[in-house]
Amino acid sequence: MQLRIPGPTPCPDEVLRAQSKQKINHRGKEFGVLIRKVTEQLKRCFQTKGDVLILTGSGTGGLEAAVVNTLSPGDRVLCVSIGAFGDRFADIAKAYGADVKKLSFDWGFPADPDAVRQALKEDAAIKAVIVTHNETSTGVTNDIKSIAAAVKEFDKLILIDGVSSVSSIDLPVDDWQLDVVVTGSQKGWMTPPGLAMVSMNQKAWQAYEKSRMPKVYWDLGRARKIFDEKGQTPWTPAVSTLYALDVGLDLIEKEGLHNVFIRHARVARAARDGAKSLGLTLFAKESHASNTVTAINVPQGVDGKKLLQILREEHQVVLSGGQQKLEGKIFRIGHLGWVSEEDMTSVISALKQALPKAKA
Amino acid sequence: MQLRIPGPTPCPDEVLRAQSKQKINHRGKEFGVLIRKVTEQLKRCFQTKGDVLILTGSGTGGLEAAVVNTLSPGDRVLCVSIGAFGDRFADIAKAYGADVKKLSFDWGFPADPDAVRQALKEDAAIKAVIVTHNETSTGVTNDIKSIAAAVKEFDKLILIDGVSSVSSIDLPVDDWQLDVVVTGSQKGWMTPPGLAMVSMNQKAWQAYEKSRMPKVYWDLGRARKIFDEKGQTPWTPAVSTLYALDVGLDLIEKEGLHNVFIRHARVARAARDGAKSLGLTLFAKESHASNTVTAINVPQGVDGKKLLQILREEHQVVLSGGQQKLEGKIFRIGHLGWVSEEDMTSVISALKQALPKAKA
Repeated sequence: MQLRIPGPTPCPDEVLRAQSKQKINHRGKEFGVLIRKVTEQLKRCFQTKGDVLILTGSGTGGLEAAVVNTLSPGDRVLCVSIGAFGDRFADIAKAYGADVKKLSFDWGFPADPDAVRQALKEDAAIKAVIVTHNETSTGVTNDIKSIAAAVKEFDKLILIDGVSSVSSIDLPVDDWQLDVVVTGSQKGWMTPPGLAMVSMNQKAWQAYEKSRMPKVYWDLGRARKIFDEKGQTPWTPAVSTLYALDVGLDLIEKEGLHNVFIRHARVARAARDGAKSLGLTLFAKESHASNTVTAINVPQGVDGKKLLQILREEHQVVLSGGQQKLEGKIFRIGHLGWVSEEDMTSVISALKQALPKAKA
Repeated sequence: MQLRIPGPTPCPDEVLRAQSKQKINHRGKEFGVLIRKVTEQLKRCFQTKGDVLILTGSGTGGLEAAVVNTLSPGDRVLCVSIGAFGDRFADIAKAYGADVKKLSFDWGFPADPDAVRQALKEDAAIKAVIVTHNETSTGVTNDIKSIAAAVKEFDKLILIDGVSSVSSIDLPVDDWQLDVVVTGSQKGWMTPPGLAMVSMNQKAWQAYEKSRMPKVYWDLGRARKIFDEKGQTPWTPAVSTLYALDVGLDLIEKEGLHNVFIRHARVARAARDGAKSLGLTLFAKESHASNTVTAINVPQGVDGKKLLQILREEHQVVLSGGQQKLEGKIFRIGHLGWVSEEDMTSVISALKQALPKAKA
């Protein structure tokens, strides 16, 4: 089976096998060596000298951690959304009592940095900006460099959903002054799901000190303290997944982080060119198309659901459908983590055979 | 290395190997079959016809879920504590704004059901009682049957920390009318850490409807809805750990749940008798000693830290020390999950050799 969804992604054999190591004491020395090594490597992938904390949970848990560790109920927050995951990030802030001001863009388009600048100019009460780097539901990558520059003109906090981008698409945390960035192990890390990783810089820790949203499990201050003092996590971590991440990170470092970015760009190009060669049209403009997931319009006369079924059952290729209002209208090829141009050739060849059989 | 701490526990080879299976689409059919099968087996282990939801997180995450899904800020809650984990459960309720009334007992002793009854009699405003079944920090098991009976006289909600007991020590959820019960995969389930499992009965779901504590990631109503409708989880789950739990549950069912309880009682007896045979004294009275963890007093003239170090370095036996105020005063043998009487013979034999070398 070829799993070509935007996460969980297939994992290399050595990563999968690493999980089978016998458990160790998560309060012992051996664990401390492991988590310190992994954390140093994560910092290099986040391109930060700030903190990166590892949490046991999914990427959504990481987003919740970003919110509850920096904000208080009533805080005005500008939530920039270009799709389902932008909406989810806003929903989390709302659930914890933030005063959410939503800046939404049509699905398939990126956020306009000038609109963000304008919103900040109009409302001095905004304390933080929440935004998705790579919107998995639409296959669009936001121009975080420009958005962050706008946010920093006003000296506001910026929280980034980098779940499907960090380690696959360049996101230099320190250079762009990104205060909090969240990712998940099952995305570009070639690792199974189960861990969220969150970076926090100085400004984020200052916000943490004032934050009054309730937090126990996701408390990053608690996580930092026990990590610094003992090389531990506050709660029992997913040790097996950490073993896997350990190997995944070694593979990334061996290839070289920037080579990994280039590979993702190349693979994405192969996915887009392949789709176009079949007469398919892309959901998003190529200028802002994602390097980790490609959204393709379901052509007229084709049943999108039937297409995915034929691909799965007759070609052992698993793709994703559209989410929410895009259900039945697009389908998505995930290409992040352990992925090559040859993998895309194989997906496109399966698509070529399946399309004529998937008549609506 | 013999890992004899109260979790993570060693896992059988077939459980560890199960994690190495390639990832699947967590929104696909194959995943639905897996999670439905595992959930049915969990229900039999919880001895409930109610719901059991699987969350990606540690046991502490499960405790947070129990609190935020049934309570509102300002709710009066009686927190019964007999040790560090009882205190932690109370701290979670406090962090989310519950009006916590603490009923603490000396460490090493179980909670007195009559004291719980008396507290409920004196304060009609109490909405829920929070209590630990098996207190890992002291090696004491509470008499939940009697405590729950007292709580039900007043028709209050009862939330149980069963992290280190469910599937190892009898806890019939339906028979004892336990509204919410929490456990973690790395305890009696012979599975690596990374999943929390939470049962909810009718009364708990009624409380959920009225609960106003903020929740997104831990929202059990959301988890139940997508499980019932699609055989999915709201967020990407720890699929590898679920593969492992699948095998762990098969092993429990093959042995028979009640045989597993009997084995744990036998192994615990071997641990206690073995310790006594070396002239050691137990921290808790045998009448309420835990069947999953045995707490032993560090004898006079012995350095507890040195003892654990010698056991680890010279005998490859990993035990736990005391937590918080018991640090240096006790040490603990974990015996839950994949454990036998022979394992205890080996621990006791190592202890016999290490004790004379660990002079204070």
